[in-house]
Parts: sequence; structure tokens; C-alpha cells
Amino acid sequence: MPGASRFALETRPPADGSTRARLGRLQLRHGVVETPQFMPVGTNATVKALTPDDLHDAGATIILANTYHLYLRPGHERIARLGGLHRFMAWDRPILTDSGGFQVVSLGDLRVVDDDGVTFRSHLDGSLHRFTPEHAIAVQEALGSDIAVALDQPVAPAASSRELVADATERTHRWAERSLAAHARPGQAIFGIVQGGLEADLRAASARFISGLPFDGICLGGLAGDETPEQRDATIDIAVAELAEDPRPRYLMGLGSPADLLEAVHRGVDLFDSVMPARVARNGQLWVPGGKMNIRNGRYLDDPAPVQEDCPCLLCSRFSRAYLAHLFRARELLAYRLATCHNLTFTLDFMARIRAAIRSGTLSASLPELRLRAGRVSGSEAAVKSA
Amino acid sequence: MPGASRFALETRPPADGSTRARLGRLQLRHGVVETPQFMPVGTNATVKALTPDDLHDAGATIILANTYHLYLRPGHERIARLGGLHRFMAWDRPILTDSGGFQVVSLGDLRVVDDDGVTFRSHLDGSLHRFTPEHAIAVQEALGSDIAVALDQPVAPAASSRELVADATERTHRWAERSLAAHARPGQAIFGIVQGGLEADLRAASARFISGLPFDGICLGGLAGDETPEQRDATIDIAVAELAEDPRPRYLMGLGSPADLLEAVHRGVDLFDSVMPARVARNGQLWVPGGKMNIRNGRYLDDPAPVQEDCPCLLCSRFSRAYLAHLFRARELLAYRLATCHNLTFTLDFMARIRAAIRSGTLSASLPELRLRAGRVSGSEAAVKSA
Repeated sequence: MPGASRFALETRPPADGSTRARLGRLQLRHGVVETPQFMPVGTNATVKALTPDDLHDAGATIILANTYHLYLRPGHERIARLGGLHRFMAWDRPILTDSGGFQVVSLGDLRVVDDDGVTFRSHLDGSLHRFTPEHAIAVQEALGSDIAVALDQPVAPAASSRELVADATERTHRWAERSLAAHARPGQAIFGIVQGGLEADLRAASARFISGLPFDGICLGGLAGDETPEQRDATIDIAVAELAEDPRPRYLMGLGSPADLLEAVHRGVDLFDSVMPARVARNGQLWVPGGKMNIRNGRYLDDPAPVQEDCPCLLCSRFSRAYLAHLFRARELLAYRLATCHNLTFTLDFMARIRAAIRSGTLSASLPELRLRAGRVSGSEAAVKSA
Repeated sequence: MPGASRFALETRPPADGSTRARLGRLQLRHGVVETPQFMPVGTNATVKALTPDDLHDAGATIILANTYHLYLRPGHERIARLGGLHRFMAWDRPILTDSGGFQVVSLGDLRVVDDDGVTFRSHLDGSLHRFTPEHAIAVQEALGSDIAVALDQPVAPAASSRELVADATERTHRWAERSLAAHARPGQAIFGIVQGGLEADLRAASARFISGLPFDGICLGGLAGDETPEQRDATIDIAVAELAEDPRPRYLMGLGSPADLLEAVHRGVDLFDSVMPARVARNGQLWVPGGKMNIRNGRYLDDPAPVQEDCPCLLCSRFSRAYLAHLFRARELLAYRLATCHNLTFTLDFMARIRAAIRSGTLSASLPELRLRAGRVSGSEAAVKSA
């Protein structure tokens, strides 16, 4: 429902144009989200291996849940009967549900897109389903998230022809209008998605079109895919230029690593989500200041130090590298929880450091230090102004 | 080290012989254990899926760790270099290590027993190893547990010939003497193991022999296997009769279900361990008053009630049956942690109820109610006196 959220900028980008990063407060039904912010992903109504208390301890203030997955299992109507998604998963802070568009159109041969919607087969049992913009909204209303997202048709950024991008972007615009018209749940905000691939004019036109509709926030879709960092930066810049005077939060869907988050914040993005910190954690990759630690490396089996000296997370405050290395080798379930707690703590702490730098007006001066902490070793470091 | 623990009986069995259950306090280096007590099993220096805080919340005051598994991975010398098992796994309460005997002699074709020890192949990589009584003690001294256990040769209770039982029991006795002679770690108690299978005279002789040695506690080994409940009860009665005036704690290794624990306490046993509550939890079997709940049953998918109404565990205090049923269907890691927390909480609470009944002198009167809570539906309910 437009008006179901309030977004206030607390620190605007400096007049010298050295960064477009800004500090904001997003008031939602279940609480306030300070931006820039990262949203851990709880695909199946659980951020894998964690409880809500673990998430709280890691610093999470908002999570993302996947509409497609919850629609298929356990079912949105079941969750509604059980009191909604917050009660179901015992998370009492804000939740954003995606539209299901990304998952549905990622199904490859299992789906057919037409102008009215998408017909797809469940990845679980092959059963046939259909999402229209109206149905995607109805599912999210049943889930009761704080923020719903309009159904879109993302395409692979770099691998898609201009014709495909143009077609999908047009369809996304029509679906955005239908999503808004269908949405009626009080207290639930709704965000629209900008598409346009890597085509500068299409991306700019899409940003203008979507921002012309009364959404509560603007998503940048169709990125965090097969594009280069330079292509992503350029595309963000095009969209953000169109949104420069827009008072609403900007959410880049699917990004990911601390280094990528920092560059996107620098370019004016407020919200992010990704499975990456948790997924790589379950594979034994721990994020630490300056880079990555592969805890499966034999050198850690005798290392009594914590994974990260100054980290307050469950892993680092109690256990050694040696213990975590042992747990991974023994395939013990505790390994996945501890590693996930750490990577999410690192990521959310990194966002807090970015916010502190914006608040004190030192973000552009702090970029080298923050890039070092994020372990960025290569890629575009072009200044915002030159973009 | 004999003398490294103190065991005081707080409530002795009643003079009327209605039960042999007793209440005790076992003082160990890392704390006090109230008996009768159940020890969760942390095979690989972790009770599967749980942190030390989870164990504490479930009511655990002592856990068991497996000497065989830790010797093979990550290695007892490594754990010693890292400060010992308590620091390694961040558990600051008592730990009992088993002797490795059960695991080693359970390896079947992978091991050869001789009078001096056991030669075996690792189940992990096939590498060749040898445990002697002295080496099993050295490994446990390196681990730094509160209670070490002498190496023994258990045999399948019901499936073993009298000759095999006699031979293994004799060997266990010689190994018990060697274990005591080898053990030297200050502050570490050492328990000896009674064998004798289901042969009444051999079991009685073994109880006499082992209790004649200066151990800090007496284990009843070679049970919780393929014997019937009646055979187990009879064997416990024989051993406990020999230990009637013995001031030391009695520990029945490998038991298990609430119903079995109750009967063994009633017959005079003080300590227990088993992987069962945690293992069945990971398969979706939840223990509740009066029986078992298979959370994989489709009927729970829409059930908003907690698994057990009055249970204070992490699962029951926050989540519904419907949510847990969903997590199990989605194979989410959180399912295993929540279910394990519950079954261990139920088991440890059940032991606390037994202790309360002993303290108030009402255990024998409370047996029907406690058996009902344990979900006992059949099996021997012979009174202690008739055994």
C-alpha cells in the first residue's frame, strides 16, 4: 500500500558530488530499517541454519523471504492461516518478500512467459502453476510481509539481446501498473522494479517509468548477474541519475559481496539482499577484514585464534579456527550455523561502518580503507563523478 | 585419578525395598552433577547441531565425548595442544570420555583383539591403529575429561556364547587393572567397567572384581544392546546387588529412552548416556509426555500448537508444529537443531522429575505416572523386590 512506509533521508549526498551515498531511515510496520542496509535471505522462511535470535545477534533488522518458494511450500494460504509469515518463522522485525519473478523466470525450460503472466512447473514436483501480477501480489498479501514487490520479468543482463530486454522491460512496466492496482493490504508497502538490462536508454526509460508510479520504493532488477563490475556501475549510475530527486529508497536486488555493496552504496543505492554471505559460509569461506579465509585449509587445524579477533559473533567470541576447521571436516551441523553467523555479522557490521562514514561525511575519504576491509583486490574503482 | 571426584548420596533407597533408586551429588573438576543424570553425547566434540549454550538451556550438566572419534579426528594430541577438550569445544562443565572400547570392538572385521589390546582400522580412512589400556588412558588424559573410563571388551549381550563372554570379561578385568596403573592425571576421575554379558554368575563376578578396584565409579557395560528389557533388568539387578553397599556412582552405558532410563534408575543406576534422543530428533521423532510425535506426519503441517505445551525449550517456546514440519520437509538445517533441543530438554526434564520423586520419597508411588509420561506401552514392569 503506498504510504505504508516512510523513508527519511538523514544525511544527503554531499554537494561536491564526491559520493552519492546517503543515510536514511525506512519506517515499516514491524520496525525501522537504517539504510544503507543489507537483507539476509530466508528462502524457506528460515535464514539457513539460524534462529531469529541468531539473526538479531548478527545485527539483522530486515530479512528477505522468497515468494516463489513459500508459495510452493508450505503454501501462502497455509502461512496466512497460521497467522502470517512473521508469526510462522518467529521473526518480529521487517520482512521484504520478492515478487517471485526472478525465481520463476530463472526456471528455464520449466516456464513460459506471456503478456498476462508466467506459467511454470514447480522445481519440487513438476506441478503446473501460474503467476500473474495480481496473483504475485495476492501471495505476498497472504504472507503479510512489510514490503511486497511487483512481479517483473528479469533477463540475464549481458547475455540478452536488445530486443529481448526491450520486450521484458515493457512487460515489466505493464505488470508494475497491474501490481499497484491489485495491491490493497493495509500496512504493507510495495516496491516497483526497474529493468532495462545494460541498455542505457532502456534502463533510463524504465527508471523514469517506474518512478512515475506511486510505489513506496524503487528496485533495480536485472543486475548482480552476468554483467561486469563496470557494466553494473554504469547501469546503476544511469538509473540513479533518473532517480536523483526521488525521495524513495533504492534497492539493488541480489548483490552480494562487501566490495560490491560498498561500490553500489557509493553510487546511491540504499538496500541490498543476497544469499552469498550465507552460502559461501556453508562452504567454509569466512569473510574477514582484508579478504577471505577458507577454513577447510589444513593450516587452520592447529590455529587457536578466533576467525576474526575483534568480531563479536557467536563463532569468534567462543570458538577457535581449529574448532571450526574440525567441525567442517567432520561435517558437523554446528559448522554451518557458526560460519553463517560470522559472515552475516561481518556483512552487517560492514554496512554499519559504511553508515557511520556517511553520517560523519567521510565516506569518500574512507573508500580506500573500506575497500581494503572488503578485500577488494581488483575491478572498477572509477569515481562517481566520472561515471 | 582415584579421589578426583566425590560422590555423596543425598537420598538413600527406602528401607522397604520398594525401589533401589537413590539421589546423589557427583563433584567433578568442572562442576557438580546431580544423579540420577543423563549425559548427552558429543561424538565429535559437539552434540550434533547444538552449541554449549543450547546444551545449557536444555539442562545438561555433563556430556559424554567419544575417545575413539576424537583420537582419529582431530586427534587427542592436537586437542591437548589447543588447551584440552573443554576449551576446544567451549563447554566448561563436566565431560566424561568413554574408553573407545565400544567403538573399537564394534568395528567388526576392521579390528583384532588380543590380550594386550585392540588393533583396528579407522572407519574414516582405513589407516591402522592400536589401542591398549595404557594408550586409551593416555588419550583421555590428553583430552582432559573430568572422568576417564578404562578400556574394556564389550560383546553383544544376547548373541554371544558363554565362552566369548567369559573370555572378554576376563580380559576386561586385566585391562581394568592396567588402566588404573597407567592413569595419573590429577583432577581426572576414572571409572571401571563391569562386563559379564547376560551370564548371571559372570556378571556378578565381574561386579565383584571391578568394585574391588579403586575406581571412582562403576560402569555397567555390555548392555543397551540386543538384550530384552527383562534380560537387562535381571542383569542390572545382579550387578547392583553386588554393589549394594558400594559408595560409588553406577553408570549404565548406552541407555537411551525415557522408559528405559526410569526402569534402570528404579533398579539403582545413577548415570546414563545415549545418542538416541538426538538421533531420533534429527529424523523428526519428537518426545512428548505419553509418547512420540512424528513431525513428518502431514497432519502437523497446519497445526499451530507447540510440539509440547509446557516445554521451555527453544522449539516449543517460539515455534509451532507447523513450522517444524515445514522445516523438516524443506530439509532446513534449523529443523535438526530445534528438534534436538526439544528431545534433550524432554529427557533431562524427565530425569529431573525422577530426582524430585526420589527426593520426596515418592518414586515407587510415582512409577505409573512416570511410565505414562515416558510413553511406556509394554515390557517388564516387575517390581524391584521380585527381581
